[in-house]
Amino acid sequence: MGIRLKIPRIHPRADSLKKREELIKGEEKGVVAKAGLIAHGRGEAFDYLLGEKTIPPALFAARAAAASLLLAEHPVISVNGNAAALVPDLLVRLSKSVPADLEVNLFYRSRRREEAVKSILIKAGAKKVLGVGRSASARIPELFSERRKVDPRGIYSADVVLVPLEDGDRTLSLKRTGKFVIAIDLNPLSRTAQTADITIVDNIVRALPNILAAVEDLKRLEKAELKLILGRFDNRRNLSETILYIRERLAALSRE
Amino acid sequence: MGIRLKIPRIHPRADSLKKREELIKGEEKGVVAKAGLIAHGRGEAFDYLLGEKTIPPALFAARAAAASLLLAEHPVISVNGNAAALVPDLLVRLSKSVPADLEVNLFYRSRRREEAVKSILIKAGAKKVLGVGRSASARIPELFSERRKVDPRGIYSADVVLVPLEDGDRTLSLKRTGKFVIAIDLNPLSRTAQTADITIVDNIVRALPNILAAVEDLKRLEKAELKLILGRFDNRRNLSETILYIRERLAALSRE
Repeated sequence: MGIRLKIPRIHPRADSLKKREELIKGEEKGVVAKAGLIAHGRGEAFDYLLGEKTIPPALFAARAAAASLLLAEHPVISVNGNAAALVPDLLVRLSKSVPADLEVNLFYRSRRREEAVKSILIKAGAKKVLGVGRSASARIPELFSERRKVDPRGIYSADVVLVPLEDGDRTLSLKRTGKFVIAIDLNPLSRTAQTADITIVDNIVRALPNILAAVEDLKRLEKAELKLILGRFDNRRNLSETILYIRERLAALSRE
Repeated sequence: MGIRLKIPRIHPRADSLKKREELIKGEEKGVVAKAGLIAHGRGEAFDYLLGEKTIPPALFAARAAAASLLLAEHPVISVNGNAAALVPDLLVRLSKSVPADLEVNLFYRSRRREEAVKSILIKAGAKKVLGVGRSASARIPELFSERRKVDPRGIYSADVVLVPLEDGDRTLSLKRTGKFVIAIDLNPLSRTAQTADITIVDNIVRALPNILAAVEDLKRLEKAELKLILGRFDNRRNLSETILYIRERLAALSRE
C-alpha cells in the first residue's frame, strides 16, 4: 500500500496570504467581525480543496447568476463585512453593470460596522448604499434580533438577491419570503449552498469577475434567450458535480 | 443524474459554535492572534469534512503519539495561542501524565501574548512554563525573526515535540534539527501533516483526551512493547487512509 502524497514544494498560496492580511486589516478598521475572520478561514480550507481556482461548475453557475440578475425586476446585492473588505470595487462595478442595488446586510449589526461597510462602498464608487441605520426598517420573518433587518427599498422588495458569504438561516429566510437567491459559498455542503437557487462554489474574488464578465456578455440577449440559459441550470446537479470534483482532486493528491 | 445531497436538517454543530466563541474571547484577551481566528476557521472546515468526530486513523495516531511521548528522553509540548484558548486543562494534564515540559511557542510573538498564554497554563495548574521572555533565547536555524525563538531547556534540547496547530515552516525546521515531531492538524494535506513523524488529523479538543487516555493505558508497558507499537505506525499510510475516509464521506453526502 505504498501510497504517496503529492504536495507542491514551493510555499503555497501567496495570494491567499495576501487576502488574509486584507481581512485582518478590515477587522482592525471595524469592517470585518471577528467571526468573519473565522468564516474566512473556513473558506480558505474549501478553496484549498478546489485548488484555488474556478472549476467548471462554478463558471456555469456564474453565467446562470448573470442571466437571473439581468432578468430580475429588482435585483439586490447583499454586502457583508468580509465582502466589503475583499472586493469593494467588484461589488460596485457589478451593481452598476446589471444594474442592481447594494445593501449592507450584516450578521453582527452595529451602527459603526454598517457605516464602515457603507463608506468602503462609497469610496469604491457606489452612488447609493441601502440598509444602513434607519433604512433597515423592514423585517424578514422567522429571524431574530438584528439579523432580520432589511431595507424596504432593497432586499425586502427584491425579487433576486445575490448573497456572497451568507449564513444558512438567513438564506432559508430569504427563500421562504419568495426571493430567488444566488449564493457565493466555498462550502458546497453548507445550508446556504444547499438552499440557494444558484450556488457559485468559488472564492468571491474569482466569482465576482466571472459574474461581471457574464453580465457584460449576456446583456445583448433577449429575455427569452436569458430564460433558456437559466432553464438549463440545475443547482443540485451542479453541486454534485462540484463535490465530485473535490473527491477526484483528493484522489489525485494521494497518488497511489 | 438525479443526485441528491443528504444534509441534516437540525442546526449543525452547536459544539463547534461554542468553540468559536471561546476563540473570539481568547482573541479579546490577547491570547489568540487575529490570524489564529482564521486558522481556526480552516480547522472548522476540515473538521466538518471528518464529520466532527475522531476517525480510526486519528485514534491510531494518538496511540502511537502516546508511545513516542513515553519513550522520549525529553518530550516537550509546544503551546500556541489557539491551543491555550481551547484546551489549557488538557495540555497541563498531559504534561503531568507523561511527564513533558510545556513551552509557549507563538507564530506571532509578543511579550504580552507570551505572558497571556503562560498565565492561562498556570491557572490551569501548570507548575512550570518554558519559552517566555528571555527564556526563549535559543534559535532554530532556517527560520526568520521571532518565529525561531525556542527555550534551551525546552524545545531546543527536546527529542520529541508535540506541536498542536503548527505552521508548515516551523514543522520542517523542527524536523531538520532532528526532532521527532507529533502534529495535531485537521488538514491531512498541510505541510505540517505531511512533514511530521506522527500526524493526528483530528480536532485538538478530541485528540488531546485520546492521547491522554493512551498515555495512561500504555504507561504500564515495557519500552520494548512501546517500541513495537511505534514501529507498527506508518504516518504516510495513515494519512492516505484519512484522505480516503474524507473522500468516502463526501460520496456518502452526495447520495446517488
